[in-house]
Amino acid sequence: MNENKGLLEGIVVLDLTRVLAGPYCGTLIADMGATVIKVENPTGGDDSRSMGPFINGNSVYYANFNRSKLGCTLNLKTSEGKEIFKELVKKADIIIENYRPGTMEKLGLGYDELKKENPAIIYGAVSGFGHTGPLSKRAGYDIIGQAMGGLMSTTGWPGGPATRSGTPLGDVLGGLNLAIGILAALVNREKTGLGEKVDVALVDSVASAMENITMIYQATGRIPQRIGNRYESTYPYDSFPANDGDVIIAAGNNKLFSILCEIMEQPELKNDSRFLDVKSRVANHDDLFEIVSTWTKKYSVEEIDKKLNDAGCPASIVNTIDRLVVDRQIAGAREMFPEIEQPGIGKLQITACPQKLTRTKSYPRKAAPLLGEDNIDIYGKLLGFDENKIKELKEKGII
Amino acid sequence: MNENKGLLEGIVVLDLTRVLAGPYCGTLIADMGATVIKVENPTGGDDSRSMGPFINGNSVYYANFNRSKLGCTLNLKTSEGKEIFKELVKKADIIIENYRPGTMEKLGLGYDELKKENPAIIYGAVSGFGHTGPLSKRAGYDIIGQAMGGLMSTTGWPGGPATRSGTPLGDVLGGLNLAIGILAALVNREKTGLGEKVDVALVDSVASAMENITMIYQATGRIPQRIGNRYESTYPYDSFPANDGDVIIAAGNNKLFSILCEIMEQPELKNDSRFLDVKSRVANHDDLFEIVSTWTKKYSVEEIDKKLNDAGCPASIVNTIDRLVVDRQIAGAREMFPEIEQPGIGKLQITACPQKLTRTKSYPRKAAPLLGEDNIDIYGKLLGFDENKIKELKEKGII
Repeated sequence: MNENKGLLEGIVVLDLTRVLAGPYCGTLIADMGATVIKVENPTGGDDSRSMGPFINGNSVYYANFNRSKLGCTLNLKTSEGKEIFKELVKKADIIIENYRPGTMEKLGLGYDELKKENPAIIYGAVSGFGHTGPLSKRAGYDIIGQAMGGLMSTTGWPGGPATRSGTPLGDVLGGLNLAIGILAALVNREKTGLGEKVDVALVDSVASAMENITMIYQATGRIPQRIGNRYESTYPYDSFPANDGDVIIAAGNNKLFSILCEIMEQPELKNDSRFLDVKSRVANHDDLFEIVSTWTKKYSVEEIDKKLNDAGCPASIVNTIDRLVVDRQIAGAREMFPEIEQPGIGKLQITACPQKLTRTKSYPRKAAPLLGEDNIDIYGKLLGFDENKIKELKEKGII
Repeated sequence: MNENKGLLEGIVVLDLTRVLAGPYCGTLIADMGATVIKVENPTGGDDSRSMGPFINGNSVYYANFNRSKLGCTLNLKTSEGKEIFKELVKKADIIIENYRPGTMEKLGLGYDELKKENPAIIYGAVSGFGHTGPLSKRAGYDIIGQAMGGLMSTTGWPGGPATRSGTPLGDVLGGLNLAIGILAALVNREKTGLGEKVDVALVDSVASAMENITMIYQATGRIPQRIGNRYESTYPYDSFPANDGDVIIAAGNNKLFSILCEIMEQPELKNDSRFLDVKSRVANHDDLFEIVSTWTKKYSVEEIDKKLNDAGCPASIVNTIDRLVVDRQIAGAREMFPEIEQPGIGKLQITACPQKLTRTKSYPRKAAPLLGEDNIDIYGKLLGFDENKIKELKEKGII
């Protein structure tokens, strides 16, 4: 197998998802070589086609989340459209969707119906609250996932407001967890021949990500609060003021704290009773913040980054987005911002997936599809419809 | 197959990981039924065994991230330990590790060595900066992933400091992306018999999660800033002040905005030239924030949550952690906080994984192992060592 084939070569995915959580999942597996067929309504397609940013009127949002996919149109509200979808299901390994729970059932295309067509189908759904429970039917949005999942209550500064994360992490976590579920189901199906329904909620995905924050409450009854950039479990592991911006220092254990003290030329701090171990440094974080800040204020972010990393103590700049996309490690060595040629847009740097592989490769395989771009291939070659039938379906607004 | 078997029944994973990113990945697949063998050094084991919170001196941190796993001890710095590890590798499908890049190679246990023992082995590594590039050898920590990956620069409030997310999302995203990579490799191996090395970096995982934020810069050259709880792409989709705290309203499209105007008894806003479409509402978000806030301040969070959701407009409370763990949807219907019986701790509510399955089940299968708890089973049954040999290995400090 050459690297171009990808780990998921030969896996056929029907991607009914829109906007972010679902499309992100689809892109991850498409970059690893799965044949992901984006199925869009013929009257405009994925809502994100009308979401910015735009270049020449074309959505860059859509392009990023749908590269590497094929695209066809299908009106699932028509009976002929439903029948065609069932034919596609017979040819597919996986379906992913992120409709509000109940929508696919209303269309007559819920998991129970579709598994009659293909008992081995893997059905992956990502929604705000999941397919069970009292809030299941509520529409799910990223900000609600971040709010109800507990993330906002612990993000931000003492005395300040609950704060969302600066990217739609509810959606991102939902998409990643869906990918894990459908791939585990695929591993199982290779052995058993049996399908599975994977049901992932944004709120659950955020709740799962809260991890040790939740365990603090479970173990002690103390409700974790917003504590800025420091962490509950260790110190000095925080942001500090340099003379030209904030710098990150992560001296989370005795060895690293010792290095920091040496570089600050204050070795006596190692024997200061306030700072003898992690626990005491956490307890006396205010004092230690003042001491470290007094030192960091004398230097630039770059100077501190170099001084500490050269000595083996982790430190870093805070990358703004313009710096991120040219970072020598992330953009350079790791190739996280590869270029695609997107019709209507031209050359565009999108964001790669983080699975770096050795034998095969995960990479953007093609531009995102124009609406219905691959109708002829999908309906002609995959389902065997002739030219006249495809033309007729198009005229009737079914594809 | 009954639900207890899990999707990953029969898959054997050697889990060399410590603390968070790696152990989280291991737990996700262990909850889905993989036989995950946590391999710890005999002198204390995973660092997180000494990280709080504690109950009766036992780490709840460790318990949460290592439930469902078996545990053995092995000193990988001894030549006999290395040989035993290679025997384990012959019996395994997957290895996961989160050492600093180069550590496994220094031990003589890098991927190139291990694949000589088992060419089909899947080797998954998660590290701060990945296994390639100029910063590869730097130690990776969550706060550095959040800072260098671009997340901190866009989290927080206008004029305020760059802010980390309230849970170690760099680690969490790294762990999830590692799980996706190793499962995709497993799907491939079922077909080809070939192994793979999966190399995931925290910084790349965060960069990937920045998604449309990065695309704004790529498309327009504008550097996305900290904008509080509103979003770049739509409005009103933000937090607003109720009379007893902040409430989330997510009226991101025309239909939902229309519902909001009706519930606020200000239908004229729908025809206000400042608020005619998403684009104009984003441009005039300051005015709209004032209008919506004037209304929200008259009611409690619960009242607004009910009024809007009853009318079909998404809204929610901001769950603090104490509310999260009893939320009727997340804790109740979705069973995100199941109880395990952890030796030395007693009954403990840990956090479940978000993959909700239909035919099989993802759930905490057992308590986290005591240090070396399953040595006899693993070295006796899996490798066929007799009682004397196991005793001798223990006396020599090898296990």
